[in-house]
Amino acid sequence: MSEISPEIQKLIDERVQEALKGAGVPQRKNRLALIASQGKLDAAYPPLIIASTAAAMEMETAIFFTFYGLYILHKKRGANLQVPPIANPAMPIPMPNIIGMLPGMTPMATMMMKSMFNKVKVPSIPELLEMCVDGGVRIIACQMTMDAMGIKKSDLIDGIEVGGAATFLGYASESSISMFM
Amino acid sequence: MSEISPEIQKLIDERVQEALKGAGVPQRKNRLALIASQGKLDAAYPPLIIASTAAAMEMETAIFFTFYGLYILHKKRGANLQVPPIANPAMPIPMPNIIGMLPGMTPMATMMMKSMFNKVKVPSIPELLEMCVDGGVRIIACQMTMDAMGIKKSDLIDGIEVGGAATFLGYASESSISMFM
Amino acid sequence: MSEISPEIQKLIDERVQEALKGAGVPQRKNRLALIASQGKLDAAYPPLIIASTAAAMEMETAIFFTFYGLYILHKKRGANLQVPPIANPAMPIPMPNIIGMLPGMTPMATMMMKSMFNKVKVPSIPELLEMCVDGGVRIIACQMTMDAMGIKKSDLIDGIEVGGAATFLGYASESSISMFM
Repeated sequence: MSEISPEIQKLIDERVQEALKGAGVPQRKNRLALIASQGKLDAAYPPLIIASTAAAMEMETAIFFTFYGLYILHKKRGANLQVPPIANPAMPIPMPNIIGMLPGMTPMATMMMKSMFNKVKVPSIPELLEMCVDGGVRIIACQMTMDAMGIKKSDLIDGIEVGGAATFLGYASESSISMFM
Repeated sequence: MSEISPEIQKLIDERVQEALKGAGVPQRKNRLALIASQGKLDAAYPPLIIASTAAAMEMETAIFFTFYGLYILHKKRGANLQVPPIANPAMPIPMPNIIGMLPGMTPMATMMMKSMFNKVKVPSIPELLEMCVDGGVRIIACQMTMDAMGIKKSDLIDGIEVGGAATFLGYASESSISMFM
Repeated sequence: MSEISPEIQKLIDERVQEALKGAGVPQRKNRLALIASQGKLDAAYPPLIIASTAAAMEMETAIFFTFYGLYILHKKRGANLQVPPIANPAMPIPMPNIIGMLPGMTPMATMMMKSMFNKVKVPSIPELLEMCVDGGVRIIACQMTMDAMGIKKSDLIDGIEVGGAATFLGYASESSISMFM
């Protein structure tokens, strides 16, 4: 290969980089972008489990918390998310809605789910959230839904960012995986 | 760099393009592909907010409306989507299911949510939909679920496309972001 | 182009491949990665319809079944998934929650939905699942939620894989489309 000049090598590299950026396509990174939109106990596990696993795999990761998902970050409510035993015939032990709607059934279903996950050593929601933060996952709370729902930044755990849909889209457009959960 | 011939420059560009297309990988564009599958008021905001923001950022965008999401496009029902105050312990003001299921509670929860979003100047669902259309977002209604649910194209807002899962997959496979909502 | 030496051609190809792999970005394939997390009848259709369509389009496809989605694979429960007629004001024929929660209403809503889809020749859930398997879709059950929910591999249909969040992330990071459903 002695006859290839450094100029040619440099040109090749430049053209490759140019082609990759071409047509305004955002560069793809080994990155995970999640939206956590729900605040029921069962729906809070998936984004936190996926994000903490991604962080352990050294993927760059961010979760954008919006709508009911903001309560996962809530100082008072985050440790007490609940699962309703109604409107879901696909529960492990299905319950007629007319029973599930009775007072006391939501706390009971919540206790059962926590115990099921605890028994197989799945960390709790606050523990998973801490694993995410410690693993370097960016935590972004949605400004617009915070405003609509009357949630202040001081109501949420410390050390988080606040942003909007454009923040998420900018981050996600360079991600190898984006998911709404 | 005077010694690099145009032939070499051309060859470099060709090889780069070939490698990028290689192995049948669809070309990645700065593009957002969404599926809107739900028709509850709270679940209708996210796809429309994300899509209208993406359009404002000049991302090419399409929403594929399927299942209950078709009602977002529905001439009669689109302006009257509702939020149920049951089976969601993560509402801003949680309500026992035994109260929430009483007649009149769904309209009340709906009114409260509309007022919450209106107060912070979030446009209504029909307004967000119009912003999407005006911003050039492609609106695609799912033929199969329209047929199953007995929804005719004339029941939906004007100027939309009708397509199937293959339409969505073809579009999404070239997108930098795809999300099911 | 006679003056371009094979050495230069080889160098160009190498540099292109290197640039594409650069910075640890996983290579993008024409591939679909889905998470199926729900086990209600209405929510079971989308992942199976999308995945079987993708397989027919010769996209490499995998579905990761987790939480309630595991019941789609369940030998006893998979053919009997149900749709609750409550907490969803966006049903084709909306029903007051106080009526929908009465005994017998969930089976009735389920029968109506099955009949709606059957009438327009949409295959049943077990048929769609079989189409996915026959089409080469990889079926992966989530070990952690199987353990938590007390589901054994022998409770699920034959010929599936079992894996974790890392399995999914590794697969999805090389996919052109990833979606949580």
